[in-house]
Amino acid sequence: MPSQFDPPSGTRDFLAAAVERRERAFATIKSVFVRYGYEPLQTPSFERVDVLLGKYGDEADQLVFKILRRGEHEASGEADLALRYDMTVPLARVAAAYGSQLPMPYKRYAMGPVWRADRPGKDRYREFLQCDLDTLGSESLLADAEALCAQHDAYAELGLRQFAIQLNSRRVLRGLLEAFGVPEAIGPSVLISLDKLDKLAPDDVVAELAGRGLPHDQAAEVVGALTGPDSAEQIRAALAKTDEGTAGMDEVDTLLSLVADQIPAGRISFTPRMVRGLSYYTGPIWEVVADGVAGSIGSGGRYDHLIAQLGGPDVPATGSSIGVERIWSLLPRADGAGAARLDVAVTVMRPELAAASFNLTGAARSAGLRASVYLGSSGKLGKQLKWASDSGARWCLIYGDQEHEAASVTVRDMRSGEQTMVPIGELTSYLAERGQAG
Amino acid sequence: MPSQFDPPSGTRDFLAAAVERRERAFATIKSVFVRYGYEPLQTPSFERVDVLLGKYGDEADQLVFKILRRGEHEASGEADLALRYDMTVPLARVAAAYGSQLPMPYKRYAMGPVWRADRPGKDRYREFLQCDLDTLGSESLLADAEALCAQHDAYAELGLRQFAIQLNSRRVLRGLLEAFGVPEAIGPSVLISLDKLDKLAPDDVVAELAGRGLPHDQAAEVVGALTGPDSAEQIRAALAKTDEGTAGMDEVDTLLSLVADQIPAGRISFTPRMVRGLSYYTGPIWEVVADGVAGSIGSGGRYDHLIAQLGGPDVPATGSSIGVERIWSLLPRADGAGAARLDVAVTVMRPELAAASFNLTGAARSAGLRASVYLGSSGKLGKQLKWASDSGARWCLIYGDQEHEAASVTVRDMRSGEQTMVPIGELTSYLAERGQAG
Repeated sequence: MPSQFDPPSGTRDFLAAAVERRERAFATIKSVFVRYGYEPLQTPSFERVDVLLGKYGDEADQLVFKILRRGEHEASGEADLALRYDMTVPLARVAAAYGSQLPMPYKRYAMGPVWRADRPGKDRYREFLQCDLDTLGSESLLADAEALCAQHDAYAELGLRQFAIQLNSRRVLRGLLEAFGVPEAIGPSVLISLDKLDKLAPDDVVAELAGRGLPHDQAAEVVGALTGPDSAEQIRAALAKTDEGTAGMDEVDTLLSLVADQIPAGRISFTPRMVRGLSYYTGPIWEVVADGVAGSIGSGGRYDHLIAQLGGPDVPATGSSIGVERIWSLLPRADGAGAARLDVAVTVMRPELAAASFNLTGAARSAGLRASVYLGSSGKLGKQLKWASDSGARWCLIYGDQEHEAASVTVRDMRSGEQTMVPIGELTSYLAERGQAG
Repeated sequence: MPSQFDPPSGTRDFLAAAVERRERAFATIKSVFVRYGYEPLQTPSFERVDVLLGKYGDEADQLVFKILRRGEHEASGEADLALRYDMTVPLARVAAAYGSQLPMPYKRYAMGPVWRADRPGKDRYREFLQCDLDTLGSESLLADAEALCAQHDAYAELGLRQFAIQLNSRRVLRGLLEAFGVPEAIGPSVLISLDKLDKLAPDDVVAELAGRGLPHDQAAEVVGALTGPDSAEQIRAALAKTDEGTAGMDEVDTLLSLVADQIPAGRISFTPRMVRGLSYYTGPIWEVVADGVAGSIGSGGRYDHLIAQLGGPDVPATGSSIGVERIWSLLPRADGAGAARLDVAVTVMRPELAAASFNLTGAARSAGLRASVYLGSSGKLGKQLKWASDSGARWCLIYGDQEHEAASVTVRDMRSGEQTMVPIGELTSYLAERGQAG
């Protein structure tokens, strides 16, 4: 039952443990991308509506969050801005705006929220992090190989064990339609049906294809070739009959051999029935799948004319996208790291000793430790020790009258309960030594 | 002249060098906050309009970016969501929603964009990063002292040298009005005028006060006390005459003594004419100023009932905010770090050698270095060396027929131009050793 204090539908509040977990993952992904020489790009959260709308069709436009004009124009009910729907439209705008200032090829990554007014559901949010890398300005398959390997390494370094990359090519698909005699006019719709082979039974797809105008026998033949036990070999033989199919197969094989030393065998394979819904791809395409997650956890491909269609220059382009919101359940559990808010908790036994306690906190921070002074109103040690324990503190510093007289502080090890009196002047080095070890 | 490819008015694109510079600064600030035991909180970019609007008055509501309802409701021209205007309203909502799950006191920091439809200007943006820390649930002045010290340390660790913290208290101001006989009814408007003493000449403020209904002599007396050479002492003497003034002065003095060991002398001082525009403060208030920046670069204070007014529980609260977009000009110039995109650039001399070059790139990455293979179409070494140099690469790996035959690679030091043949099997360790040193 949603309460008035819940975040808006489809969005989330992240408290400390969730933020820390997410930021660790993002830092890992970022470090991989940087190691591949991709550089960061950050664009505004919103774009002008004319930049954003009409780029991916009406259905996508319906999912865009539009921002009302302001001041005297607010009453018009019109929008002049809209929240970012993906990272690719802003990339196209940036390529147009800063062309000569950008290195060429331009290898950039973008990590940040995007917003889509989709119906919220499991792992589907209205505000979610997108994590893209793209290379503009290179026709080389090496650029696709980099995008693939960087994406693979990101999952691997995040600790994912079971995942597989399905590789195909739009040219393979075009060759396939030609080899099986599919009329050009129904080619795109046939591909849309074939894309359902991972969800529907083969017979259902055959029936759907027949409904789209492909003769039943032909439909059964192509579905049989794509789903049989020796599918890849059958498709390979069929493709060899057409120029486009041969070129596509060549593209796939070259890419497989380029990544062979960097992506473990078995983690990537030619998957001719994998289509990718989006029609703008022009060359290699891939999806990453994992047991336990429906659909894909990432994808990528070459989209050589999309940047121009989105308003940018006509440059070749390829890239990968990590579906970072879909992988949380696959990540290894952290070993309690991040659960503790503090290394050092400092008591305040009497108001008159508060300044001294506050300075002890400063000394602990000088040792590079996370430290906080007790901010409550109780003068009872038991209550303050409970606070220290709740904060996950490794040590509690106790400073009462006895310590004050001795110019010392009692350092309590919160795990063992052992207490040691340490002269105040030696506290920073005492904690620094032990902080390293802990 | 704005072009169609510019980001929307008041927003910015950040290319690589700017992103890196910003992220370094944010990481520094974050590390300070964490060291003080503040924990992160991230809330959605938008809130429901009923959560956001009507909280800071009509003027602020005018600056809120509102999001149109979607689907069949879009035509209504109504908004149901609005972009976050600050970090405090979401904090109040979170305190209401997760009360018992949060540690008490709840010390949190929030760093993220906020959006205000202000007229864009120098250092004033419509999307800008806000960087707040707050403590809910502590009445202790230690919580204010922490907020002050954490803010101070953040500026100091960012490398700011010349900055000063002006400290005052709302109780001092109330005592001041009482001590100088200002009628309660015009108290708030008198404070608004006194707040202009850092911009207007004293006489102009006296005139404004007279316009607000304060007799001229009285106005001249209070302005004189606030601007004279021994202002702090005069004010101190005046405050001693009232209970509220005595309590306020006590608050300021206690706070000054708490932070005395952690904020260098001269960096913080009692500044009775500093009012802070916002009326919701209840205790200590402060602003951070720096030469060369008009207005403040940060602020903070205690606001004990605001969280309840914003829809949260009635808890005492205090916090600081760093005006991070205003300090870039004050930061020391980075020493070119981040200008280089790559450590290692790898040539591709012939298409047949591309796979081997691609694997050399992988070997360099295994050494922890940023590495990229050449993605262009030229087979000329000169052109590829120029690319390596433009990328800021420390080394260029050259792999041609000669190297292929010798199962080696030529490592060119891009600074000295020296070239060394290294057996392929030794490349990772060769680069790893030198990478550490470089």
